[in-house]
Amino acid sequence: MAKLYGVGVGPGDPELLTLKAARLLKEAPVIAYPAPMEGQGLARSIVGDLIPAGRTEIPLRMEMSLNRDSANAAYDAGAIEIARHLDEGRDVAVLCEGDPLLFGSFIYLLERLGENYSVQVVPGIASPMASAAASLMPLATQDEAVLLVPATRSEEELERLIVSCETICLFKVGRHLEKIRRVLMKSNRLHKARYVERASQAEERVLTLDQAIEKGGIYFAMVLVGP
Amino acid sequence: MAKLYGVGVGPGDPELLTLKAARLLKEAPVIAYPAPMEGQGLARSIVGDLIPAGRTEIPLRMEMSLNRDSANAAYDAGAIEIARHLDEGRDVAVLCEGDPLLFGSFIYLLERLGENYSVQVVPGIASPMASAAASLMPLATQDEAVLLVPATRSEEELERLIVSCETICLFKVGRHLEKIRRVLMKSNRLHKARYVERASQAEERVLTLDQAIEKGGIYFAMVLVGP
Repeated sequence: MAKLYGVGVGPGDPELLTLKAARLLKEAPVIAYPAPMEGQGLARSIVGDLIPAGRTEIPLRMEMSLNRDSANAAYDAGAIEIARHLDEGRDVAVLCEGDPLLFGSFIYLLERLGENYSVQVVPGIASPMASAAASLMPLATQDEAVLLVPATRSEEELERLIVSCETICLFKVGRHLEKIRRVLMKSNRLHKARYVERASQAEERVLTLDQAIEKGGIYFAMVLVGP
Repeated sequence: MAKLYGVGVGPGDPELLTLKAARLLKEAPVIAYPAPMEGQGLARSIVGDLIPAGRTEIPLRMEMSLNRDSANAAYDAGAIEIARHLDEGRDVAVLCEGDPLLFGSFIYLLERLGENYSVQVVPGIASPMASAAASLMPLATQDEAVLLVPATRSEEELERLIVSCETICLFKVGRHLEKIRRVLMKSNRLHKARYVERASQAEERVLTLDQAIEKGGIYFAMVLVGP
């Protein structure tokens, strides 16, 4: 029986793929990945050289928008196409930035295909670890707790959540930097915050939150707040 | 100037090393790693074949105990020995199970050497991602939050923390399974819990919490609680 692989390709540096991901991508006859309406997208670009020529590629094209309609349509259509390959005995590897199960696009395919097909997930380097490495900031030691939370949550919820843990990793910060600054000022932790952009990539930058706000936040960034 | 590398070697499957970790371990003239008083320990065993013969190896031998005296002494002595190699121009790669900055032993060397030497961290696959892959459980999607917390925290603290997040990853669960069960029963989430032992290793097991309590918990295990 053919297998559906969810393959984490890490935060951007092609060397941060695992040996397992690299092997599977060389072997898999069919490769699928989320992609913008034009161009190849980050996940496909990370593994550029690793996929042999002539493999079947399925870009799941979607608009990058808060509205989920385009993404849902792409996953619906993609799941049908992937299922056809699996039914005909061909393994399919789905590329996923970071880790497949932590805010990963693979979750949407797992929801659609997980019940009827054999699935294996290859974990990937997730952005909190890549951002911690970029800023040499320990995430947790001894009995400390770490909160991973999207900055899309409301200001009230972030205020409530942020006081509970020694370390906070804020995802999806791009448009929410002003809100994050207000929340951290209230809890007196603004000076502990670092904005990390494109961790592990050539354009990696580590900034204070004030510097990031002045420059403007981007999608591929996160804010770490230390104890 | 020689460099100190903190190298994440992942959760146990040697194929879950990154390409970067594998390259650095082939190149580094000196390799250090935490180890029990006898034997080589998990981190060194994961990279078994990757380190060429004849390299200088520095096992940081410590008693596996709640008392930190033995570990602190090993990191103190290890830091001095590592510094000597760096001073003489030799790069040193420190192996670390999982990720170096998430409950990683490398943090203790970073504290001792980070100010005076050039440091680079290579992130590794951390146990929450490996455990999620083992149990095919999404950790977070959309605006969900994830809590990473050691089960060594008090019952009252765990109760307070656990209600705040959609997904909980409990570290260091071995001796705390009964406490975890009480906390999860109170918050009505026991049926959402999975105990994952030795994720990614040949002996990997995914159990309910009741099954795990009956069998007995081990050190290399975590409990995931889904939404």
